[in-house]
Formats: sequence, C-alpha cells, structure tokens
Amino acid sequence: VPVAVLGATGTVGQRFVALLADHPSFELVRLCASERTAGKPYGEVVRWALAEPLPARAARLVVEAPEPGSAPEPLVLSALDAAVAGPLETAFAEAGALVVTNASAHRMDPDVPLVVPEVNPEHLELVAERPAGRGAILANPNCSAIGLALALAPIERAYGLDRAHVATLQALSGAGLPGVPALAIADNVIPFIRGEEEKLEREPRKILGRLAGERIEEHPLVVSAQCTRVGISDGHTALVSFATRRSATREGLHDALASFRGEPQERRLPSAPARPIVVHEAEDAPQPRLHRELERGMAVSVGRLRPCPLLGWKMVVLSHNTLRGAAGGALLVAELAHARGLVR
Amino acid sequence: VPVAVLGATGTVGQRFVALLADHPSFELVRLCASERTAGKPYGEVVRWALAEPLPARAARLVVEAPEPGSAPEPLVLSALDAAVAGPLETAFAEAGALVVTNASAHRMDPDVPLVVPEVNPEHLELVAERPAGRGAILANPNCSAIGLALALAPIERAYGLDRAHVATLQALSGAGLPGVPALAIADNVIPFIRGEEEKLEREPRKILGRLAGERIEEHPLVVSAQCTRVGISDGHTALVSFATRRSATREGLHDALASFRGEPQERRLPSAPARPIVVHEAEDAPQPRLHRELERGMAVSVGRLRPCPLLGWKMVVLSHNTLRGAAGGALLVAELAHARGLVR
Amino acid sequence: VPVAVLGATGTVGQRFVALLADHPSFELVRLCASERTAGKPYGEVVRWALAEPLPARAARLVVEAPEPGSAPEPLVLSALDAAVAGPLETAFAEAGALVVTNASAHRMDPDVPLVVPEVNPEHLELVAERPAGRGAILANPNCSAIGLALALAPIERAYGLDRAHVATLQALSGAGLPGVPALAIADNVIPFIRGEEEKLEREPRKILGRLAGERIEEHPLVVSAQCTRVGISDGHTALVSFATRRSATREGLHDALASFRGEPQERRLPSAPARPIVVHEAEDAPQPRLHRELERGMAVSVGRLRPCPLLGWKMVVLSHNTLRGAAGGALLVAELAHARGLVR
Amino acid sequence: VPVAVLGATGTVGQRFVALLADHPSFELVRLCASERTAGKPYGEVVRWALAEPLPARAARLVVEAPEPGSAPEPLVLSALDAAVAGPLETAFAEAGALVVTNASAHRMDPDVPLVVPEVNPEHLELVAERPAGRGAILANPNCSAIGLALALAPIERAYGLDRAHVATLQALSGAGLPGVPALAIADNVIPFIRGEEEKLEREPRKILGRLAGERIEEHPLVVSAQCTRVGISDGHTALVSFATRRSATREGLHDALASFRGEPQERRLPSAPARPIVVHEAEDAPQPRLHRELERGMAVSVGRLRPCPLLGWKMVVLSHNTLRGAAGGALLVAELAHARGLVR
Repeated sequence: VPVAVLGATGTVGQRFVALLADHPSFELVRLCASERTAGKPYGEVVRWALAEPLPARAARLVVEAPEPGSAPEPLVLSALDAAVAGPLETAFAEAGALVVTNASAHRMDPDVPLVVPEVNPEHLELVAERPAGRGAILANPNCSAIGLALALAPIERAYGLDRAHVATLQALSGAGLPGVPALAIADNVIPFIRGEEEKLEREPRKILGRLAGERIEEHPLVVSAQCTRVGISDGHTALVSFATRRSATREGLHDALASFRGEPQERRLPSAPARPIVVHEAEDAPQPRLHRELERGMAVSVGRLRPCPLLGWKMVVLSHNTLRGAAGGALLVAELAHARGLVR
Repeated sequence: VPVAVLGATGTVGQRFVALLADHPSFELVRLCASERTAGKPYGEVVRWALAEPLPARAARLVVEAPEPGSAPEPLVLSALDAAVAGPLETAFAEAGALVVTNASAHRMDPDVPLVVPEVNPEHLELVAERPAGRGAILANPNCSAIGLALALAPIERAYGLDRAHVATLQALSGAGLPGVPALAIADNVIPFIRGEEEKLEREPRKILGRLAGERIEEHPLVVSAQCTRVGISDGHTALVSFATRRSATREGLHDALASFRGEPQERRLPSAPARPIVVHEAEDAPQPRLHRELERGMAVSVGRLRPCPLLGWKMVVLSHNTLRGAAGGALLVAELAHARGLVR
Repeated sequence: VPVAVLGATGTVGQRFVALLADHPSFELVRLCASERTAGKPYGEVVRWALAEPLPARAARLVVEAPEPGSAPEPLVLSALDAAVAGPLETAFAEAGALVVTNASAHRMDPDVPLVVPEVNPEHLELVAERPAGRGAILANPNCSAIGLALALAPIERAYGLDRAHVATLQALSGAGLPGVPALAIADNVIPFIRGEEEKLEREPRKILGRLAGERIEEHPLVVSAQCTRVGISDGHTALVSFATRRSATREGLHDALASFRGEPQERRLPSAPARPIVVHEAEDAPQPRLHRELERGMAVSVGRLRPCPLLGWKMVVLSHNTLRGAAGGALLVAELAHARGLVR
Repeated sequence: VPVAVLGATGTVGQRFVALLADHPSFELVRLCASERTAGKPYGEVVRWALAEPLPARAARLVVEAPEPGSAPEPLVLSALDAAVAGPLETAFAEAGALVVTNASAHRMDPDVPLVVPEVNPEHLELVAERPAGRGAILANPNCSAIGLALALAPIERAYGLDRAHVATLQALSGAGLPGVPALAIADNVIPFIRGEEEKLEREPRKILGRLAGERIEEHPLVVSAQCTRVGISDGHTALVSFATRRSATREGLHDALASFRGEPQERRLPSAPARPIVVHEAEDAPQPRLHRELERGMAVSVGRLRPCPLLGWKMVVLSHNTLRGAAGGALLVAELAHARGLVR
C-alpha cells in the first residue's frame, strides 16, 4: 500500500518515517511538509532527531506541499500541527484517502473513530460504509489518553469503571519541535500543558464508548486530570487513582491487566506488541528510561497497583509518547484498518 | 539562646547552619555529626553544597558526636537521619533540651506536637507544662506535608475539608546526600519514594487536628497521595484536588489563601514570611525554579485554582523543600516556641 | 541618570530590568522591545523568567518600539538580538545616547571600545573626545570572553601571555529565549554554538590590546576555542590551558589572580564585585550551581590551577553568563563610563 | 567458551550480562559479585538499570563470591571496582584464566597488553607465550581513552602525531552506581573526575606504542587532558585539538578516519562494528543522545574536523562509554583473543 506522511519533519513525522522504513505492508512514497521545505530532498530539510539513522530511501524523497491533488495515496498518516491539520486532513479524506491522524482537530467529530486498536477496534465500523472514491479520517487519541485508555480498558471489562483521577508527568517530545525552550524547563517543572487536561478528561470517554448504530455513545466515566511537563526526552508517566463499579481485588486487577489482549494481537498486526500491557512488581517501577522501550515502545507499563483510600485503587501507568502514544499508535490504527479492508 | 545542630553535615543540617549565621535570637554554638567526623573543624568535614558561602564562624566549630551530656544547649535543632534520630532526640530531650526535629521518628508520638506555625501553634501547649530540667520534642512535618497543610489550612477554616488527592513531583534535595544516584534519575522519573505517601496521607490529619486536653484529635480528612521523584534540585510540586464540606467559590478560595496569616506573622518572628501563601494567576505558575525562593523560601505558592470534575477543586502547590519544608520550617517552629517561652 | 533598555523582554533585558530596580545612579525610564509588544505595559508582555520578582515600577512602564527619536535618554542599555542590533544602536548613538550594548554587532568596530572594566578601562578614552550632541557605542564582550579575559588579565600582567586553549561548557540562558529546544538538549550535549568559537578566539585580543592613539592594537595572544552547550540554566565553565611568556609558579599565578583589582574596585562602582576573581582550592571547584552567584554573580571563579604538559598551566574558569557575562557586565561598563564623565 | 563475569551487578557488569545473552562463541556460566549478594539468584540482587530486559538465563544464575577456585572458567570478564580488582584479577590469572578487565589496576603493568582491537591487536603477542595452566590479564583502556585512541590511530598512521589537547564532557554511567549523587550534578557541571586526566594523558601512549620484543615502547605523543562530568546518562564527548608531524589536509584526515578498519573487521568478530569510526559532516554533530548507539554502541563518532590556530586541527569525538568504552570494548578484546587462540 503506498503511503503519504503529512507533517513529515516534526518529531512524530520523523517517527513515522523511521517506522515505515521496513514495513511489510506499507510503502512510504510521499513526504509532505511546510511550503518552506517543499521541493528539496527530505534528508536536506529534516533536522533528524532520532537515535536510529535516517532511512536512506526516505532521505532521497523530495518533500512536497501537503495538498491531496486528484489521486492521493490510499493511506495518509498525518503528523500535522493542530493549527493546520483540520482542513488539510478533510481535503485528503474528501479526495479519497484514508487519513490516520495524530492531530487533535477531528478527534471528537461524531463521524471520526477515536481508536486504540486493542480497546475499541469495532469503532472502525463508523467508516466502513463509505461511498466509492470517498476517504475517511481515523483519529489516534492524545498521547496520554492512549496509555490511560489501554490501562483502564481491562479494568472496565472486569469490574466496570466509575471515576478516575490522573496526574501526569509528560516528556518533552510530546511538545514537538521546537516545543519547550530548554531554559524554561532547566531545573524546573511546568505544571501546565495547554489543552491537555481537557483532552485527558474527554477522550477516554469516547474511546471506552459504545458503538450505537452510526454514533459512539460516550462512557459515563468521570476523569479529573492534572498535567505537568518534566525535563525528560520520552515517556509519559501517569499517576492514576480509580474507582470500580464492582468490588475488585489486587489479584483480579493484576490478572485483568497482564492478560489483556485485543484484535491487533489476534491478527498479529506488524506493529502490535505481544503484550499490550506489561505489569511490573518492583516497588519503583515503571520508569521512563527503563521501560518506555518495552515491546519496541508499543507496550504500556503498569506498576504500583495498590489500594487508594479515596477511590479504591491506585496505579502508575507509563507509555512511550511518540511511539505507542503517537506514530506507533497511529500506525497500528492504520494496520488495523488495512486488515479490516478499509484501505482501498 | 545557645543552639546545637544535630546531623549538621547533611543537606538539611547545612541549611540550619546557613540560616543561623546572623540570627537575631539564636546563636549556633555546637555542631554534631557522625563519629567519623567528630573532632575536626566543620569546614573541613562538610561537603558544603549551598550556593551561599559557608559561614566562617561555623566553619571553625569543631564537630562533636551527638551526645547530650549533662547540660545540653536549651535549644537543639535536629537534622538527623531517620534511622538514628529516635533515641538520640529522646536523650537530648530527657537531658533538658527543647529539640525541634526534622526527622520523622517522633512525628506521630502522642506527646509530640507536629507543628506548622501558621496552622496549629496552639499544639505547642502539649509541651508547655513540663517539669523543671525536662525538655521536649517538637516535630517539623514531612517536607511535602508542610506545603500541603499550609495550603489546606485556610480552605479548612473557610469551607471545611472533606477529602483530598495529592500527586507530588519532589526534588532531589529531599532525599539528602548521597541520596538518589544521578544515573538513576537521568532522563527519568522515579514514581516511588519510600514511606512518603504514608506520611502525606497521615500527617495533615494531625496538623489540622484539634487540641483536646492533653492530646491531639486528628482531623477526619481523607488524603490519597502518589509521590514521585524528578530530577530538579529544590522545590516540591503538589497537584492537589480537594472536596470542601461547604460550597466554595473560586473567589472565596482565592481570598482565603491570599489573606491567610498566622501567629508567626502576628509575632513578626525572624523567619516568618510576610505572606505565608502566595497565590499566582499565571496559567503556568507556580514553577520550582521561578517561585521556590519567594519570601526567602518560606512562602508556599498556590496556582491554577480551578474546578475539579471529581472532587470540586484543583490547585497546584509549590514549596521549597529544604527551606519551608525542612530547616526553615523547623527554625520557625523554634522561633515560635521561643516566643511562647518554651525554650528554657 | 535616565536610562532606556532596548530588547527588554529577552533574558538579558530582564536582567537589566532587575539590576536597575534600586540602582543608586541610574533610573529606568524607558523599555523598548519589538513592535509586537509596543504599547502595552511591560508586566503584561514579558514572560518573566527570573527567580526574583518583576519590579513593580518596571511592570507598569509602557513598552515602546526601539526608536531613538530626537532626544533619547543619555544612557541606553542594549540587549537587542544580534540580527537587528547594528543599525538601531548606531541610530541611538547618532541621536546622542551613550549606548552600552551586549550585542555582538559593533564589538570589533575600530571606534568602539570592547570593555571589561577591571581589565581595559583606558579603552574608554576612544570615545572621550566626541562632539556635542553626539553619542557613542561601548561594547560588552561575549559572555564567555568576559570570564576568559578577566582570568587571563592578571596572568598577562604578571607573566605575559603567549597562547591559550579554551574549551567551554555553556549554559542555556546564553542562547536566550526561546533558544535551544528542550528536546534537543535532553540527555544530551551539543558540541557547537554558532559564531562562538570565532568570538572567543578574537575578542580577548582586543580586550587585552593596547590603546595606541585613536585605535586599539590587538594583543598577539593566540587562542583556540571549542564551545559546547550543556543543559544547565546559568553559568559558563571554561577549561583553559595557557602558555606564559615568562616562567610562572603556581603560587605566583594564584596570587596574581586572587589579588587582582581594577578601576571598578577603586571607584567602588555600585555593581563592582569586591573580588573580581575568586580562587578556589577545592579539587572539584568551581561548579556552576555552587559558585555562579558569588559576589552577586559578578565574580569570576578560578580553580584547579595546575601544570599542563602541553602549554604550561591549566585552570577552570566559571562565570555567570547573564550577570557578569551580560547584563551585569554591561551595567558595570555603564557605571564606569558614568564615573569617568562619559554619560552626558 | 564458558565465561565468568566479575563485578556483575554494577553498570559495566550489567552490560556484560546483556551482551553475552546471545553470544555466538561465549556462554555466560558464572556471575560473581560482592559477598553480600553471593548465594542469591542474580535476578534478585541486581538493580537492573538497562532499558533492555534482564536476560532470563542470567537472572537465574546464583551469584558467587569472586574467587578463582582451582579451575576457573577459561575466560573471565572483569568489571570489578578499581579498589579490589588488582589482587582478584591476578588470582584468576594465576589459576589459569584469561582475564579481560575493565578496571584500571593492571593497565600500565608492563606484561599486560592495553588493547583497542582495531589499533594495537599485535600487543596481544605479549601474552601469547605463556606456560600451560597459566592465564594472563588483558586490559581494556579507560572509557575516554578508547575513543581518543581510536580517533587518533588513523591520524597517527597517516600523518604522525605530535601533541594533543583533549577536554571531555563525560556521562554519569562512567561513574558507576551509586556514583555521582543526583543533587551534586543537578543544574550543574563537575569539572573534576579523580584520576581521569592522568589516565587520558598516559594510556594513549601505551595503546599507540610499539611492540618491541617483550615490552611496549610508549609513543612519545604528549597529551593534555581536562575532564568534566555532565548530567547525561551515556556518551562521552571529547573536544580534541592535535598537531601532526607531517602536514595534513582536511580531506586527508577525513578519509583516514572514515576508511579506518582493523583486525576485528577483517576477522568479522561478533562485536566488531562495520565502521569503527563514523565521520559526521553536520555542523553540530556528533551528539551523545543521537549518535552514541551507532553500530550498536561500538562506533566512535568524529565530527567538526576543522583547523586549530594553536595545534593545527580540531575535532569532536564521541563514544558510548559503557559499550565501546567499557563492556563492549572488553568483549571485543576477548573475541580478538579468542580468534587468535589465546583462550585456552
């Protein structure tokens, strides 16, 4: 399947390029970025910021402006800035592409599935019945919401979820490039990320929601979020307290989390982690530097499962924000859509 | 008043030495540290780690082993390690000293006041009636509990407190020296601090408790805490959600916090901040590097006061963990005790 | 003396504002910044990034565009970006102001003194004989060059200087705001700062040069520089190896450094440090976090003075890059010019 | 070949364990660590600090005290602390083992080869003629010296080396665990590493030395070193200035570096990097976070090759200090010794 990447020079765009390098089903054929860089080879305009080398084939691709034209690639992965993503992604979808986007613009649109492949693959049915020549948009959730939704899903299934409090310590790569000025975060913590708490309080309700005909009925879960930025490169940590509807035990929660599998595992999708959730028993785990790369960055780590005097249970959830939480997660959505025959 | 400092070479001990350098009422006359360093001038054995210079007089004091002898100084400030603090502090108190301690050993003892001077100065009455020649122990709370108790106290007075959830991002100096290995925290967050959550869930109940005759009746407040270590030098950030008993407004909470004053301000104690709580309106305040030094590190900063869908209200609380949260806080307790005539 | 500050919202501009708050001779009356911010109170447009509070009077000043008009303030402190500083500073000087600039645009102009007040105050004579109504430009050297020149000056006087090798570890504040993206420096070192090595190899020759009539004869010293950026907030560290013309001893070097004084100390200028150079004997000093604030950030710290198998001697030099190395240094130049009657 | 690891719980020891997990020629059969941990499974006593998971087989090995016994493994990899390494390594060698050590104790012993496999493989001949039943010690150089020697070797061959100045910015993992206290390096640089400058000035002379009969004749190269610790996890950066005996060109130096190959590449040793030296052309490369992992951490990166006004040429050299600079380098020495028939 030929694939185009929009917003290819940013931190998430670079991850897309790296992940597509040796992909068994997808072939990267087009890289789009801002007007300023269009017309030059990708290798010349990108400030490559990953430890793995820039793939040679991608380096030679000439960057194009992000316009769909008459016959866009059937699959488009978008890492566009929120500020410009909305209309551009709509244009690509209207021109026939299946757009899997990491941007927030369309996430809460009623006709756009907001998908964590292990959690709500059935939401893809929203876009299954589309006219010939017509594309669609699939949204990858917010980087913190993905980890949270993955960790809450097995608990919801086993015990029902009522309320959750989540406090996050989010990595710098989540703000993209240039992102946070280094001087602003040196020896510091920034207890505010614009729009993040709203997303974290809203998106899990849609992800955990129920497909009801042609719409998603949101889950009634109440989430309260407090989000902070800390000076680390990758890996979002979430401190989660939650209340279940039915009485839970530590062993039951542990087993529900550790045994959780979904459609990506069943279908053995190329980017699917063998274990979507890794449960840690060490008293000081999970930690970003030690555990963010588990299962090639596609596993969510859960640790410190223990009682909470307020809501019932507490746990620590860690996920790699530019892999599972962005490019890797979106690619898994694309693979799932492909496996379900939605890429045409 | 002649003063001895126990545990003088650690991070909190060094802060005591710095704060006592030009104190109007207290004179540093004795420095005690481990056997290994006893007998040598303080300036030779301490690995001074503060940006302000080591006071010359203190540098010349010969370090002694921490033994009370027959006539200890009337005031003893303890920065001993928790592992050894218990019996040593008891020995000094039995020998006649008023011991103000930063260690956790005696904090929950029924006859030991656990004091934040602006919040519960009346708890000092617990030790007012003591036999001649007999000392007592006054405890400074846990570094995170002080900031939390200060920020909650005006809310409790104005609206009553029911429940609170607190997630902390704590600085490295809180772990002392050698403390956390640098390699363990490089590009990392550690979501565990031994014993910290228990202290943060328990101590505010005693601090906000009611003096009932010769005991403290704990406040029924339920706190749930999640504590993490982040790689910054000083300044603990707490993300607090809370429920009040009576309905509150943002303006009412803001005013209660901003106008809060206590006995240290009335008595104009030397270490008392003019404003114990500084309320910030900037959307991304407070931040450790920018605000930890306010009021010479003795103010607690509160910001981001906003509704919480779960408990009613959220806020961010910042305090300097080795000043207000340790040495400065303990010194203020000592000044309050001195002003109330308890140092004999 | 009424003073205007150009580029008032950047990191160095903010330092100017803070330093002028209670200045005995200078009164801050005008703040200039980009067109975008002009017309609004400074307190509304600046993103204040210092730990000390924004002075209330400055907060109320309405920001103006950087235009000299017909009668500029007699003293102008410039923290403009290099990209725009050149013509704007010239315009202010032509309109009559004495401009003390931190920008690099005019540093190597033959009629512009490049001044470290303790080192080459006599270079100010270059601008002493100017026509009525005509201003002049005085340049503050590069942040790393100031510390290097201060540390080398007493050695030059005592033994003569021949060659020096300097490797720097420079702080984030030296890049201003937004400056270095946090993600670029997280768990990283960047071994390149544009233009920095050239400045460090060139400027000391002019600073240590000899006033010969109406021009400066550069010192023949050969400097080789390698500059890196490290992820700390403030404080540039320089690893210096040097060869003297005449044979030196460790004691002689130590004494030359420790006893160094200059015109700012003789004149007791308000911003002058009592000791321009603090010599450290601890084997691991100086360190940015511990020593950058010495003498209110105006002292240069020198440590680890020891033999070098290649050039003769090695030492470590530390200076606060936005105080001594920028705003504080420029203010000291202004005070020196004022004391010498050059502000008219 | 059965292999034992000494000092298995430290940072370098853990790297040995990870690298041996799937080794084609070596099988990890024994893990030795301090008395305190002996008798327990490795998985229980090690505080695993690598991002890759602890190999399951190693986790089950019962830790032993570091004693050779009568029949030690033929190959012993030592990551012992310098304080205890000397006599223990001698004991293992006397009992018959070939000990490849990362410790400094024996590096300058006249009968111990100090080996960088691409640079001086012929030095192994020093231990080729040994009596039956008798082992030997092979030393891996200091972590910074390896990168320096690798980068200097092709220059020495092409142009001859005369003098070099090297300033390092060294990572935290170089200090092991617990190593540097986090509070000591927070927002800080430490311009001192005990013994490091001496090693860096001395070891390259032996590595680049000439095998003359039964001894190594040191190379007359004069090196001056200044070493600092910076707060990053892995990757030592060295700023190198050097003088060649014969006149060099940039192109000639570039080609000598980029085309450099040695015996490990010819023999295709399992841990040998395809390119021992990667030359970078980007103006701000190499950088630790981006380039330390090149060739599985076994390549040295060289960048910013440019003229030096003092010595002729400057460059920036980066190497992964616990892979190429420690465990990976020592393993490559062991593989070379094995290929040459020295493991018996």
